[in-house]
Amino acid sequence: MTEAPSERTRVKRLNKRAKYDKETVHGILDAMPICSVGYVFKGTPYVTPTLQWREDDHIYWHGSSASRMLETCVDADVCITVTIIDGMVMARAAFHHSCNYRSVMVMGKARIISDPAEKERRLKSFTEKLFPGRWDILRPVTAQELKATKMLSLSLDEASAKVRTGPPGDDEEDYALPIWAGLIPMRTEILAPTPDARNLPGLLPPDHVKSFKIG
Amino acid sequence: MTEAPSERTRVKRLNKRAKYDKETVHGILDAMPICSVGYVFKGTPYVTPTLQWREDDHIYWHGSSASRMLETCVDADVCITVTIIDGMVMARAAFHHSCNYRSVMVMGKARIISDPAEKERRLKSFTEKLFPGRWDILRPVTAQELKATKMLSLSLDEASAKVRTGPPGDDEEDYALPIWAGLIPMRTEILAPTPDARNLPGLLPPDHVKSFKIG
Repeated sequence: MTEAPSERTRVKRLNKRAKYDKETVHGILDAMPICSVGYVFKGTPYVTPTLQWREDDHIYWHGSSASRMLETCVDADVCITVTIIDGMVMARAAFHHSCNYRSVMVMGKARIISDPAEKERRLKSFTEKLFPGRWDILRPVTAQELKATKMLSLSLDEASAKVRTGPPGDDEEDYALPIWAGLIPMRTEILAPTPDARNLPGLLPPDHVKSFKIG
Repeated sequence: MTEAPSERTRVKRLNKRAKYDKETVHGILDAMPICSVGYVFKGTPYVTPTLQWREDDHIYWHGSSASRMLETCVDADVCITVTIIDGMVMARAAFHHSCNYRSVMVMGKARIISDPAEKERRLKSFTEKLFPGRWDILRPVTAQELKATKMLSLSLDEASAKVRTGPPGDDEEDYALPIWAGLIPMRTEILAPTPDARNLPGLLPPDHVKSFKIG
């Protein structure tokens, strides 16, 4: 366990599960594009799921210029969480059941990316991270599309990870009980690609489709 | 599309993806135990991942009595989101890339479950929903464990779902381009159970382990 970058980022509960090193934080963010964006609108908390991607020490998310979530987040405090469930943890007592997971929480003020050239460059990075080689085969992005896209970034300065791995932790005396305990591991499975019914005849899936990976 | 139960629950963006019927909302909540709890602490939004379960028209979550998240949520406005990613949607233009997903957002005031008997009953429901038949083979829960557990509930009165399914939606003129488009479906895969190294010799995994399902 390294040290928390700020007090509000410090993991409070079960802090033996806390990690603050870049390798862990980046690894989790890179393994799961879905994130939960938390923000406050008129005093009420909202959590909106969306896709995120990381470049160096920032994460990015985007959507319609008309999005209330994005509009509300600009220059405001946000909290973005990414969570991967790795399995169920089955103990000998209900109390010690748990799940194995990897999560990252990032706090800070969201900033808007206004420059169209930067927006386009970051959209390319996002696309290429998920699907290497795809950007250059796509119909090029238009100025109108960039205008219709709002993009935000959040520094990873205040990021923390929380990770649980390994077997259940039962009370010592319960290990003598004849109760099956253990793990049920889980992972995200990628299934065979489904070509769009309107693909031109003879088009084959590119490598970035055939070898797509997540997690 | 049925009608939104409240204005703040109404899906604002891409409202053709909105669903408010119980069957859809319950189905998504029952398919994914991981949720993201959004709350406000000292004016700042926080999003904490945890496990949720549904009974009738409420969802429940729990944790340590010392949890700041749970303490902060009691009688406060919260927003809980559950998200399942079903696949990547690959279009002919970067702008129309997306993912298929099912998500639920629930808003309202969190209530504490203080009565130990109700807490125990709901812990049993939670366990039995995931692992039918497990509660009765476990070491019974103790009064001390119930005391160490804080449990909250949130009404589904203000719940909305947002669902994207199906192929990419490209601009009409782009369908003539020789670009592979389609879906890469994803799902949560359950792997073979791993028995705890300290299980008593000869213990076999019960049916609720062998036939565990999610999603």
